[in-house]
Amino acid sequence: MSSQESQVSPKDASYELLYWPGFPGRGEFIRLALEEAGITYMDTAQFKNGIDQVIAQYDEKNLGDDFNPPPFACPILRHGDLLISQTSNILLYLGPRLGLVPKDDKHHDALYKVNMLALTALDAFSNEMHESHHPISVGLYYEDQKDEAKRRTKDFVQTRLPKFLSYFERVIQGKASGEGPWLYSGQLTYADLVLFQGLNGAKHSFRKAMAAAEKSGKYNRVFELYEAVKERPKIKDYLASKRRLNYANGLFRYYEELDFDLEDRD
Amino acid sequence: MSSQESQVSPKDASYELLYWPGFPGRGEFIRLALEEAGITYMDTAQFKNGIDQVIAQYDEKNLGDDFNPPPFACPILRHGDLLISQTSNILLYLGPRLGLVPKDDKHHDALYKVNMLALTALDAFSNEMHESHHPISVGLYYEDQKDEAKRRTKDFVQTRLPKFLSYFERVIQGKASGEGPWLYSGQLTYADLVLFQGLNGAKHSFRKAMAAAEKSGKYNRVFELYEAVKERPKIKDYLASKRRLNYANGLFRYYEELDFDLEDRD
Repeated sequence: MSSQESQVSPKDASYELLYWPGFPGRGEFIRLALEEAGITYMDTAQFKNGIDQVIAQYDEKNLGDDFNPPPFACPILRHGDLLISQTSNILLYLGPRLGLVPKDDKHHDALYKVNMLALTALDAFSNEMHESHHPISVGLYYEDQKDEAKRRTKDFVQTRLPKFLSYFERVIQGKASGEGPWLYSGQLTYADLVLFQGLNGAKHSFRKAMAAAEKSGKYNRVFELYEAVKERPKIKDYLASKRRLNYANGLFRYYEELDFDLEDRD
Repeated sequence: MSSQESQVSPKDASYELLYWPGFPGRGEFIRLALEEAGITYMDTAQFKNGIDQVIAQYDEKNLGDDFNPPPFACPILRHGDLLISQTSNILLYLGPRLGLVPKDDKHHDALYKVNMLALTALDAFSNEMHESHHPISVGLYYEDQKDEAKRRTKDFVQTRLPKFLSYFERVIQGKASGEGPWLYSGQLTYADLVLFQGLNGAKHSFRKAMAAAEKSGKYNRVFELYEAVKERPKIKDYLASKRRLNYANGLFRYYEELDFDLEDRD
């Protein structure tokens, strides 16, 4: 086999997700795309010693291979001889292959619009979500940055969260979203799945604020999208399965002292 | 003209960058790609009232148009009837069009590798860079989060910065980077330009640490890449031109109290 051939990711190669076990984390954005498409995939979080594959990628001597630069962090996707990291990048690769990006003539350049929406949902519910409990250092325990976390999370919940919810409400209200509950093109795309997972994580972490946001009636379209994803048959089966991990001390956490309301009630 | 035709971005339409005036910011990652390609483009930072176009996009009533969802924030690229946001997404669109992603048979799936590297450089030098001076809230002044900024920046400079520099050193050391100073495929890609701009911003913000990092000899490949980009004829011309804005109170800032050394010297 020539080196060129060996880099082609064969269509029949299985998808392999390398991610930490024990919590949904950023891996969940990838899992939902694979689950919605009904694809069988390998997930290091699901088998004994799977974590060893993750740790090997983090090795400070890992230089990647002939075709792939080393990844900086997981989630990582392996498909045949391809190995890539970065959540939005993996979704960019998987989206068209899993039928989660429109490919009709009416929606030119759809991938850039879906990617834009997915990146924005990830900014909100992955990046800023993580910063809320780790505002000083990813290398320190939460307990060692608790005061700063309180200050940051209050701002996130009361300022950033409503801003992002308003934004996605506007996206669904706009004409480019098409008919129905989705963000773009009138069809389910992977951006909808990313937003669903982000909202699900936010509902876990910020119970008061998310309940108040839903009750306010200001973001009805966003919560309709949330319910519509939740009721997709394959997603519903997945959420009820053992493959769906429980929230723990990962990206989406619950701390009573960080569960701020949407507005101060005093 | 049918609605389908109107969504096609004609190859001869000019690229328009919508970004804040007064500092390089995140717009700079886009500008360097256009400059390296020798493309004439419109830049709202360069003309009077250009900022009005940016502000209009942020309007809370902006629902986008028939084809494009509204953007959440700039940088924004307009190309014909296409309007997209998110730095990495704009580069993803421009990269192949500007010859900044390899398209030879030997480098299958190159776009996902270049995008992975660009996203990682943006994580380091755009996202975490911004958090260093705004660890609590993007809506508060630096002065109102100065104590937290000191704590966060010390961690960034002494822990995260060396980690990212080591990572990119490994990338260049690896086989997938090919011959020469570049990150991937032995050819200049837009990921190299993103890393260059990130390093340039870090040299402005963290003078002591970046000087120590260069002197240490641990990241020689990274600094060779930096010099190689800087010496590209079109980049060199651009950096000496008036189009290159000076650093100010944008993404890349200099505060004496945040200019930590790479290691404590006490």
